Amino acid sequence: MPIDVDTARGDTPGCAFVNHLNNAGASLQPSIVVDSVVDYLQAEALQGGYETATERADQLDTVYDRADAFLGGGPENWAFVESATRAWNAAFSSLRFERGDRVLTTRAEYLSNMGGLLRAQEIQGVEIHVVPDDEFGQVDVAALESMLDERIRLVSLTHVPTQGGLINPAAEVGRLLRDTPVIYQLDACQSVGQIPVNVDEIGCDILSFTGRKFVRGPRATGMVWASSAAVAEMGNPAGVDGRGADWDEPLAITPLETARRFEPFEFFYAGKVGMAAALEYAATLGIEQIASRNRELASRLRRGLSELSGVTVHDKGRELSAMVTFTVADHDPQVIQCDFRARRINVSTSGPGSARLDYPERGLGAVVRASVHYYNTEDEIDELIAAVGDLQR
Amino acid sequence: MPIDVDTARGDTPGCAFVNHLNNAGASLQPSIVVDSVVDYLQAEALQGGYETATERADQLDTVYDRADAFLGGGPENWAFVESATRAWNAAFSSLRFERGDRVLTTRAEYLSNMGGLLRAQEIQGVEIHVVPDDEFGQVDVAALESMLDERIRLVSLTHVPTQGGLINPAAEVGRLLRDTPVIYQLDACQSVGQIPVNVDEIGCDILSFTGRKFVRGPRATGMVWASSAAVAEMGNPAGVDGRGADWDEPLAITPLETARRFEPFEFFYAGKVGMAAALEYAATLGIEQIASRNRELASRLRRGLSELSGVTVHDKGRELSAMVTFTVADHDPQVIQCDFRARRINVSTSGPGSARLDYPERGLGAVVRASVHYYNTEDEIDELIAAVGDLQR
Repeated sequence: MPIDVDTARGDTPGCAFVNHLNNAGASLQPSIVVDSVVDYLQAEALQGGYETATERADQLDTVYDRADAFLGGGPENWAFVESATRAWNAAFSSLRFERGDRVLTTRAEYLSNMGGLLRAQEIQGVEIHVVPDDEFGQVDVAALESMLDERIRLVSLTHVPTQGGLINPAAEVGRLLRDTPVIYQLDACQSVGQIPVNVDEIGCDILSFTGRKFVRGPRATGMVWASSAAVAEMGNPAGVDGRGADWDEPLAITPLETARRFEPFEFFYAGKVGMAAALEYAATLGIEQIASRNRELASRLRRGLSELSGVTVHDKGRELSAMVTFTVADHDPQVIQCDFRARRINVSTSGPGSARLDYPERGLGAVVRASVHYYNTEDEIDELIAAVGDLQR
Repeated sequence: MPIDVDTARGDTPGCAFVNHLNNAGASLQPSIVVDSVVDYLQAEALQGGYETATERADQLDTVYDRADAFLGGGPENWAFVESATRAWNAAFSSLRFERGDRVLTTRAEYLSNMGGLLRAQEIQGVEIHVVPDDEFGQVDVAALESMLDERIRLVSLTHVPTQGGLINPAAEVGRLLRDTPVIYQLDACQSVGQIPVNVDEIGCDILSFTGRKFVRGPRATGMVWASSAAVAEMGNPAGVDGRGADWDEPLAITPLETARRFEPFEFFYAGKVGMAAALEYAATLGIEQIASRNRELASRLRRGLSELSGVTVHDKGRELSAMVTFTVADHDPQVIQCDFRARRINVSTSGPGSARLDYPERGLGAVVRASVHYYNTEDEIDELIAAVGDLQR
């Protein structure tokens, strides 16, 4: 059944106030998410934070089942953390590298993942190598294959990069790495909730995502999955505490046997409940239906923008995402964002500072980013196209 | 002016529902905190998460001024993060160790800090040495002095440990280390909001705390301070992203020059507003007044418990905190906690698993922990004493 857009908008209080085309920043949340978060916070205020966590343990734990139902992998291999960045780093920092081990990353690599990779380079002597793009602008899988040798410990791929309309061929990379000892870490921050994602079908070893983007969950939420085999190779994550490890000797702690070692004791408990609600809401609509509508809306937007003189759409890739990046001749993207916001149209910008391996190579400076989601209407898309058109008047 | 307990309780909806003696877990929040968090979350739902952060940037930034006003150190040297554990690790992980560098810690060291220390031991070859306690049960400052030599890079001290009634002599340690190159990292997770804490007076280089405990802020909030001199010695923190660093070269990122390098892009934005409200609320009451009432209440509780047969109070230290730990002969602490909860008395427990350098040395297993705060009444303290007394009937 296709998405019932009116119902989806009725579920979303923000739709009455803004034309929200910044879903790749943070989506508008459905009422069920906001209400479950606020309800939990009120319970904490009346009963105490720890007491509420104990009494609502079952409710909090549903997030693992929801993640498993939506993304596969088994509930016990999912951990809840504070953000996609913490999620990515929890798993990555648990890997034990030898000096000279190599990590392959791609031009689409996300800024905060680079923070982790560069730390491993500095402190653990890991070497970082960048796989080139193919002629479509996605990761060149053949080049990646040719770079594989026994020194490669990890391939880090960003599924849907923040800075453009690309969807990287995650499953193709998974097929390539499936029978190798290489760890395949997939950043699915922008793909979960936008397009179908299943850890088993993709064949990755580690996957991380956030609540606030296409999942439509609360801010300050993230989840990370790792296969049992990958976890078996890992040590303690950075920031581990009594939730993820046992302090069993004066100068030694032992991590839990599952991916729950990634979970810190303290996080946004109310947000965990909100994340569970958001995953359930998305699953009920159906990710195929969501993805299909996202494709249509993004395609309508790209088509409309392309027809405007002075406007350049910058998305590249064999398969395109719900994120549309463009520039308008003689107009500063940040000024556009600001002006549109005053007209209650929410868009974002992206720049070389968050795409250092990508934009300079393409000769790109800052761009406007409009990211659609299924609850947006065709009228909202057309309103943005008209607003961009007006800039050239 | 002493605390007006009736007004404080009127400000605190939870006081009508529970006798909350688990303030060292998470305090009951005043309405102003809960309301400011919920108000912010509602704005996000109506306007978008990023858009709300932009429009309320000034409100979000007040947290730095509040922290400076309450704890000193200058607003620019404070960073907001997701928890005390993230706060401690943000600073600690930014330090650059050489193999063989030594870290001194104490018997009171908190579990999650040990996670960081042991990671540095494993990956960076740091040596951990434990300073003994003195005859009062606090860190032995003379012993600490005798252990100082050119190999010592860092002293890590927990100000008020989670597992007992101790207040460690943080300022005394500060005086000892002030003119040395040793970095002094103070975990003030349980002291901020409970007793006077001022980074300049203590003379530490790094200080971290949480919102949810004696500050009465939201869960999923923490702050970290570092002196400009300490920051100048540091590299990128673990988990750094585009908020704390600039990605200026393909394979290099440069951290911000201030403590803001510790701040991740994503965290609990609504919680940041709540933290600011909580700090302002505490400052208005006055930390001297808060501390004075906490001492009275804790002392009343210790006295009452000590008079009961079969009850042993385990707090040690020259100066005692608002956290009272005790055991009751033939009664399991966790069962006590559970039974009391059914009577709407909230207490907590502590065990060797979170005090591995402390409890085994003292022959202690699990204990009950009751932690008072200024808004508790004498009647509530007496109700707990009576409930403990009833166990022996």
